[in-house]
Amino acid sequence: MTQINLNSDMGESFGRYTVGDDAALMKIIRSASIACGFHAGDPTVMANAVRLARDNGVSIGAHPGFNDLGGFGRRPIRMNAKELEYMVAYQIGALQGIAAGVGTKVTHVKPHGALNNMAHEDAEYATAIARAIKSVDRDIIFVANACSEMVLAGEREGLPVAAEAYIDRTYEDNGNITSRRHADAMIHDPQQAIRQVLSFIGEQAIISKHGKKIPTRIHTFCAHGDEATGVAVAGAVRAALEAQGIKIVTLPEMTL
Amino acid sequence: MTQINLNSDMGESFGRYTVGDDAALMKIIRSASIACGFHAGDPTVMANAVRLARDNGVSIGAHPGFNDLGGFGRRPIRMNAKELEYMVAYQIGALQGIAAGVGTKVTHVKPHGALNNMAHEDAEYATAIARAIKSVDRDIIFVANACSEMVLAGEREGLPVAAEAYIDRTYEDNGNITSRRHADAMIHDPQQAIRQVLSFIGEQAIISKHGKKIPTRIHTFCAHGDEATGVAVAGAVRAALEAQGIKIVTLPEMTL
Amino acid sequence: MTQINLNSDMGESFGRYTVGDDAALMKIIRSASIACGFHAGDPTVMANAVRLARDNGVSIGAHPGFNDLGGFGRRPIRMNAKELEYMVAYQIGALQGIAAGVGTKVTHVKPHGALNNMAHEDAEYATAIARAIKSVDRDIIFVANACSEMVLAGEREGLPVAAEAYIDRTYEDNGNITSRRHADAMIHDPQQAIRQVLSFIGEQAIISKHGKKIPTRIHTFCAHGDEATGVAVAGAVRAALEAQGIKIVTLPEMTL
Amino acid sequence: MTQINLNSDMGESFGRYTVGDDAALMKIIRSASIACGFHAGDPTVMANAVRLARDNGVSIGAHPGFNDLGGFGRRPIRMNAKELEYMVAYQIGALQGIAAGVGTKVTHVKPHGALNNMAHEDAEYATAIARAIKSVDRDIIFVANACSEMVLAGEREGLPVAAEAYIDRTYEDNGNITSRRHADAMIHDPQQAIRQVLSFIGEQAIISKHGKKIPTRIHTFCAHGDEATGVAVAGAVRAALEAQGIKIVTLPEMTL
Repeated sequence: MTQINLNSDMGESFGRYTVGDDAALMKIIRSASIACGFHAGDPTVMANAVRLARDNGVSIGAHPGFNDLGGFGRRPIRMNAKELEYMVAYQIGALQGIAAGVGTKVTHVKPHGALNNMAHEDAEYATAIARAIKSVDRDIIFVANACSEMVLAGEREGLPVAAEAYIDRTYEDNGNITSRRHADAMIHDPQQAIRQVLSFIGEQAIISKHGKKIPTRIHTFCAHGDEATGVAVAGAVRAALEAQGIKIVTLPEMTL
Repeated sequence: MTQINLNSDMGESFGRYTVGDDAALMKIIRSASIACGFHAGDPTVMANAVRLARDNGVSIGAHPGFNDLGGFGRRPIRMNAKELEYMVAYQIGALQGIAAGVGTKVTHVKPHGALNNMAHEDAEYATAIARAIKSVDRDIIFVANACSEMVLAGEREGLPVAAEAYIDRTYEDNGNITSRRHADAMIHDPQQAIRQVLSFIGEQAIISKHGKKIPTRIHTFCAHGDEATGVAVAGAVRAALEAQGIKIVTLPEMTL
Repeated sequence: MTQINLNSDMGESFGRYTVGDDAALMKIIRSASIACGFHAGDPTVMANAVRLARDNGVSIGAHPGFNDLGGFGRRPIRMNAKELEYMVAYQIGALQGIAAGVGTKVTHVKPHGALNNMAHEDAEYATAIARAIKSVDRDIIFVANACSEMVLAGEREGLPVAAEAYIDRTYEDNGNITSRRHADAMIHDPQQAIRQVLSFIGEQAIISKHGKKIPTRIHTFCAHGDEATGVAVAGAVRAALEAQGIKIVTLPEMTL
Repeated sequence: MTQINLNSDMGESFGRYTVGDDAALMKIIRSASIACGFHAGDPTVMANAVRLARDNGVSIGAHPGFNDLGGFGRRPIRMNAKELEYMVAYQIGALQGIAAGVGTKVTHVKPHGALNNMAHEDAEYATAIARAIKSVDRDIIFVANACSEMVLAGEREGLPVAAEAYIDRTYEDNGNITSRRHADAMIHDPQQAIRQVLSFIGEQAIISKHGKKIPTRIHTFCAHGDEATGVAVAGAVRAALEAQGIKIVTLPEMTL
């Protein structure tokens, strides 16, 4: 492996409320998944995040979530497939509307929080998301949890798919990330994050916290910006990757 | 005058709540301005309205409003120009995202309620809306109250502008519609509506309820679908126009 | 049995959106469960419903639901017990604030939609609701699905509990109502509703759609006002009960 | 003057979003005005703020605002008087519901942001707020900007009124605070805040930034917790007041 993408969730502030250190993370990552006003974000927050990305040469994607600001999109909501497809298409389009004004383009989509977790193992949800992406623009890259139903759905729908792993989340044996309800969900130690990333790359697999290996391609690693340690962990991982001679590129630059 | 457009606001239901008789109005009008989830509407409501429009050969536009579902977008909200521009661009993009899935395109934008009323006389608001449209797609038609700052802003920004009058709203001497706070705001009588439309066309002017004439082109007349009498009034006006030999066309078919 | 209560959900309009025929139902039922602004309702809608109840001699209760206007409180949301308790206490208090201005009192609480369904079988949810009621006013009656965890939780917390059945919903064998996702969830035929109510009273049991009897006291029957047939069904049931010599009283008048 | 109250706005976080340092301010002030879920706050945030107040011997009040989370209640919204009255009664009741669970009581009400500014000079708005308070509990103290229509409305309605000035906001000649749109709205310098507070007390007047004196009683001073400098400014003012031998008491302890 000679190149990889680093991405992060961005633009998750809302009105008067600020969360995350987007400006610092933009220096480290190469692709930003921007909240679209449902689980977080608003038009002004989105525009600021898109402009920041553009100014840092960072590619942008939509980060659609459930319409649940109070729960930050982290609470599962059951919708029918068509409703979900429209909800995702709406959010992608909304970010495209904002991006047009800034002079840049939406090149990937990555679901947020509970939507992402549900679509990891639910083929109907995964397919609804893939169809929403395809209906808006079939060249948009579907950033999908490695080993998930989303990877399969994206491939079935003919979308470019980037398989993703986390630098700062531990994994269950089924390949899904550990729920935030558990104390060991997040990795706050840069050295642990570096070990995880390098072992995933070396083994070409997700490795669960119990040591189970699930073979998979990985095109992009995600760093969380909303944790106090997020910037330090992401910076350390980037440095470690570059020390291995791996180039950090944007998602459109990746060979998928 | 040998052709004119009839438009109406559509897709203003929300979740469990239904308002307006979109299906009946779609048979009468030729362009639908679809609420975008801020003052009304949600992704599913929007998709249903877009599909209904497509099936009836009705062109669609975005109907952006303030983010105030409780007030149905009818309460003035003061925002700075950039925030307003982003808010409008977001809503246009969101409808484009929905429209893509239905296989149709957004060809006009018409502001809703208090946003429309404020932009009628506020050049900053009018310009912010025009810039939002232009940033997303400079071929989109700006449906602007006749005699308003929106007409001027649209022309300054180089957008195609369709000047609009209402078939079922009375006018003040300044060319703005009478506020809904007044009892004579709405026209519920089909004959009164027909007289208004034919006199506006004949005089090439807006004529206020006090008889003041304000000369202007009119490309499109708006019918309200959320009133009990809306469908009857719109149908009567359409029949009267056709009886005069005037063809009712979509906005993209109009010569602007 | 010589007396029973009839209740209905009320005040589920929102802003510009109207749902249900509260005025007609108020003539039939004796207790109104009023939405509190989370799944439906707003302060003005609530005040109007409270005033209407007062003018009709109808007792009022809070009808708390999830904060999900888009889903009308019908989508399950998982919260921790304390969050849920606060959410319910908030809504009860809010209705008390409105009721004070109208000069009446909140005398019962009945959960709405998905919250009600979840608390039917989840002791933690049922207990959180009971504790919220108790913390605000331990004399408030907990209107709880017959045979549910809510009955048990209300009794454990020392609350007055009114066991409830529906006149217009069918039942599963576990005593829970049939989900609205199924076509046979609602009873639209007045005769079927009358048969259900009289058989439940006669057998002193919930009887499922498959004929299973689950013995239980029933203090109150609920009629749905948001269905087109709701008023007719409720009126027919009330007449049938009175024809049996059963008096229809308010919840505070019931012997619990 | 031998005693005075210090109050601050609290509980203005929302869900995942945190704002203000409530824990630090609770050590300095004696009365907390707690957001009620409209412009900010949610049931869990409210419960946490109420508990923190109780544990610090701080009296609590409702801090009602417009239903505009995106604008943090800082954008004027025009409502009719009855709608406004219900909106305020709802929020007071909601906080009472939360407070009951924590074992404490709501003893004052202070409007937030744009609602407060509008009611400063609009007798209709001021009266609607006073009536809402009175309808819920006529012993609740109305914390009203000194020299405002709110003071007059509270007195007309027979409420206990506490006249308030700010330690960290500058004043216009009309006695209203300088709008946040102006750079000199906030006082960030502790020494400037101390000078303002001591001169207001010494002169028994509001003194505008241009030196205009508007004679008034002042029962309570408000410190803002949402500014980075808020805690330092509040702490310095408290120390300065105590150095003058002035006792800092809760609102219910004040002689009004």
